[in-house]
Amino acid sequence: MKVGVFDSGIGGLTVVKSLLEQKLFEEIIYYGDTARVPYGSKDKNTIIRYSLEALEFFKNFDLDIVIIACNTASAHAISELREVSNIPVIGVIEPGVLACSQTITDKNSNILVLGTKATIGSRKYETSLKQMGYKNLISIPTGLFVPIVEEGIFEGNVLNSALAHYLEELKNIDAVILGCTHFPLIEKEISQYLGGCTTIHSGDAIVRYLKDEHNYDKNFKETKVTFFASENPESLKNTARKWLGSLLND
Amino acid sequence: MKVGVFDSGIGGLTVVKSLLEQKLFEEIIYYGDTARVPYGSKDKNTIIRYSLEALEFFKNFDLDIVIIACNTASAHAISELREVSNIPVIGVIEPGVLACSQTITDKNSNILVLGTKATIGSRKYETSLKQMGYKNLISIPTGLFVPIVEEGIFEGNVLNSALAHYLEELKNIDAVILGCTHFPLIEKEISQYLGGCTTIHSGDAIVRYLKDEHNYDKNFKETKVTFFASENPESLKNTARKWLGSLLND
Repeated sequence: MKVGVFDSGIGGLTVVKSLLEQKLFEEIIYYGDTARVPYGSKDKNTIIRYSLEALEFFKNFDLDIVIIACNTASAHAISELREVSNIPVIGVIEPGVLACSQTITDKNSNILVLGTKATIGSRKYETSLKQMGYKNLISIPTGLFVPIVEEGIFEGNVLNSALAHYLEELKNIDAVILGCTHFPLIEKEISQYLGGCTTIHSGDAIVRYLKDEHNYDKNFKETKVTFFASENPESLKNTARKWLGSLLND
Repeated sequence: MKVGVFDSGIGGLTVVKSLLEQKLFEEIIYYGDTARVPYGSKDKNTIIRYSLEALEFFKNFDLDIVIIACNTASAHAISELREVSNIPVIGVIEPGVLACSQTITDKNSNILVLGTKATIGSRKYETSLKQMGYKNLISIPTGLFVPIVEEGIFEGNVLNSALAHYLEELKNIDAVILGCTHFPLIEKEISQYLGGCTTIHSGDAIVRYLKDEHNYDKNFKETKVTFFASENPESLKNTARKWLGSLLND
């Protein structure tokens, strides 16, 4: 089985990590639109246009499935992508919502959704979580977390002051949905800042979703991963080596 | 006289501010490539390609001059832009270096250059300042300042921790070149953090450069400004209204 994984840049590597840990696929083709990253501050039409172009990029790879490992693209472009695709296209929002419903059974729990401006602005998580029966939802765009992670900062004063900037007023959060694929890299810090609450991680949610909703639960000996980027693929590969380490074969 | 002002996004508005304060032009056409912002983390070829497309955008406006109000584009694409343009193209780097040489006469002064990763990586300021005879240069990419300013943060803990993150070790800085058109919005904070040192501001440097090098020193009754953007021009216009206030006529 061959999967295409798309993200605006490097964030989707956290989803690749989950796929590699489970050895779910024989082959992963990763495409990061690094020449136009980030998507999270851009508007709906731009995000749709760029996402459709990414799908076009995957066309010659004879894929079985495409994963949109970017919350912003999933929030704004998933219907448009599905409309033109001959193979299944899975975003990260439905899996995240499903993972939340499996993890947090008390519908009166306080659920916090963090994401880019575009993801939070789409209200996609909010709408789906409400449909699931959750009553106490808070959504906060935490745009600075993305460049902070891209700057290689995963702890310390800069991150702590950004956490305080966005989350200072919050109390009694039971679970936080990491609604941006960059955020798993600061998962512990976000959870700790919120008093040790449960986290929902897009990558792990995708794995669970493939098993539960698509009955897809393979286990291959190894996964071949090839990285592409709309600019500077070498830089993307370096980050992949740093973040994924021994999970990569090469 | 009609000028085109180009930036990857909203940073170039600080240059427009300087032009408006001096009423240097009858008309300003501003173009922000907001659909692909930021440029500062992208590579040379991408920056050149995008900058050439911006020049193409200006083609039908019958301009007298184009100002590249983006340090990253000036650092990487100025020669390519000049090669294809029939009218003068002015970047912000030469004016910044000239302003530095007029302001800081002691060549043993400690000069700090701040900019995006791409601007600092180009070593354009460094090379030109060395040619001017400056001996003590420090260049630091301070990428997070851009998203912090874009997030509307101009003071407080987030900015202070970013200042400390990048500049903590520095001592006895005499002047700082604000090598990114976002940075004038946190000019006071940068200067104060460095003990109250002199700042070189791209917009003011451009005004001076036009007077000194192009003998251009007009003063019109008013300047008409029109804003264009590759996405969401309304958002750009809102920021312009906020930053430029009463300098705008409409």
